[in-house]
Amino acid sequence: MAALLGAKTPLRRVAIFGGTHGNELSGVLLVKHWEEDGAEVQRAGLQVKPFIANPRAVQKGTSKEMTEDSPYEVSQAQEIQRLFGPKGSEDAYDVILDLHNTTANMGCTLILETSKNDLLIQMFHYIKSALAPVPCFVYLIDHPSLKYATTRSVAKHPVGVEVGPQPQGVLRADILDRMRRIVQHALDFIQYFNEGREFPACSLEVYQVTEKVDYPRKENGEIAAVIHPSLQDQDWKPLNPGDPMFLTLDGKIIPFDGDCTVYPVFVNEAAYYEKGEAFAKTLKVTLMAKSLNSPSP
Amino acid sequence: MAALLGAKTPLRRVAIFGGTHGNELSGVLLVKHWEEDGAEVQRAGLQVKPFIANPRAVQKGTSKEMTEDSPYEVSQAQEIQRLFGPKGSEDAYDVILDLHNTTANMGCTLILETSKNDLLIQMFHYIKSALAPVPCFVYLIDHPSLKYATTRSVAKHPVGVEVGPQPQGVLRADILDRMRRIVQHALDFIQYFNEGREFPACSLEVYQVTEKVDYPRKENGEIAAVIHPSLQDQDWKPLNPGDPMFLTLDGKIIPFDGDCTVYPVFVNEAAYYEKGEAFAKTLKVTLMAKSLNSPSP
Repeated sequence: MAALLGAKTPLRRVAIFGGTHGNELSGVLLVKHWEEDGAEVQRAGLQVKPFIANPRAVQKGTSKEMTEDSPYEVSQAQEIQRLFGPKGSEDAYDVILDLHNTTANMGCTLILETSKNDLLIQMFHYIKSALAPVPCFVYLIDHPSLKYATTRSVAKHPVGVEVGPQPQGVLRADILDRMRRIVQHALDFIQYFNEGREFPACSLEVYQVTEKVDYPRKENGEIAAVIHPSLQDQDWKPLNPGDPMFLTLDGKIIPFDGDCTVYPVFVNEAAYYEKGEAFAKTLKVTLMAKSLNSPSP
Repeated sequence: MAALLGAKTPLRRVAIFGGTHGNELSGVLLVKHWEEDGAEVQRAGLQVKPFIANPRAVQKGTSKEMTEDSPYEVSQAQEIQRLFGPKGSEDAYDVILDLHNTTANMGCTLILETSKNDLLIQMFHYIKSALAPVPCFVYLIDHPSLKYATTRSVAKHPVGVEVGPQPQGVLRADILDRMRRIVQHALDFIQYFNEGREFPACSLEVYQVTEKVDYPRKENGEIAAVIHPSLQDQDWKPLNPGDPMFLTLDGKIIPFDGDCTVYPVFVNEAAYYEKGEAFAKTLKVTLMAKSLNSPSP
């Protein structure tokens, strides 16, 4: 793998996943649209495949992976390996753009799986610049103990795209437009990269996950407090020790008891209630990427 | 029935329903809280029963009535008739407050099933005044051809409470607080009414449903356009003939082709995609109610 990262090898095969979670509708609508008329996502020299990643979840309109080892989920994961993998091999797709929505107020978010991918750091830097003044944040899920198993990771360069806030089962025009622009800019970057455009060394501010925080719960597992109003919708903003974090039904404030400032993300994401995650703590980190396509020394 | 409306008979039995739709979580959380500790909803001389209306939907976290005539739904409706009805009888509960959330930007909404209920017009007038300056709207679902079959209608005075916007499967502190205040004010009104307080004749502005509008759809039934950004989140605001209504993926604007100004509600409600409702058109109507508890002439 290491030899591929930041290499000048062109990126020839790109997949766009929608419907990994069936009730995150922006990606579902876009992928179905591009399956019917792919002109918008075609680029010279590039093979772009829009793909509904979990057709049964889309049909049911659900976000619940029935359980990750249900026969359907397993066979669907195998199908994705067959079509876009195998993971870690030369045959794997170059890039997968995996389109998601969140109920959290995260705006435009790109998800990076490893800090050691200069190509994606450059791509994300490009997308951020192209979207400005609309902000775009990068969530880095590289962590020694937290495990993220994504289907998109079969690709050499897996890209998670999260746009919110949007309720499950709803299509908002504003969210759809932002997701669409992210995909456009990602494909533009790939085309420019293939054409040999030089991307000078750059830095990228990312928010690296450090810990997941669950809701306070009763003995029976039910929620005992909700996100405090002063934290609600404040994704990417600093949460300082002592700041209000949760609010019980009796009006008691539960403050943040950490020992340093963190930046919460996925605050009050619907799909994470059952996963025991009220929000994820992140720390700001700056990543550096070498120049791409620069003349060899 | 007619003899009961606006009568001076005290209202002794009130039920508070949560979880009629299992993923509308504010009511679920409040009802479970009040089942454990009902002090907040107790009033002198009043029997108040918090009740999870559809336990299986709550457990599954779903809004889908499997189908209204599934064995479970039928038996649950029978149970509600047994506990709180029978509908139309002297034995029926006086009031049911049925707590719902919507993904639409409807704020605090009270749902009135008939324009001929002076007691509820007075109650809604009281709640609106008590909530001010927070706006509270009244949606009247009395219509000659559109049918609304609500489980709460087993009560003599059925009250629908809708608070939004809140995604399905999410608990927001601000929405929870508003729903809670509506319930408080409703119970206060009932207590004052029972105590013989006089409520002078009043008028109430309501939004009466006239028609449901579906999304433009492809031949296979899939959504072909989304709510236009200038209509999104604009519940209760005027939609004039020619105003943008939907936006296709090709950027085509579909304008409102009505012949008079309407006031859309339930704009982009998640649960209504499968019911073929992008929003409901309403017209503004002013209802009048006689005074309550005034000395007999």
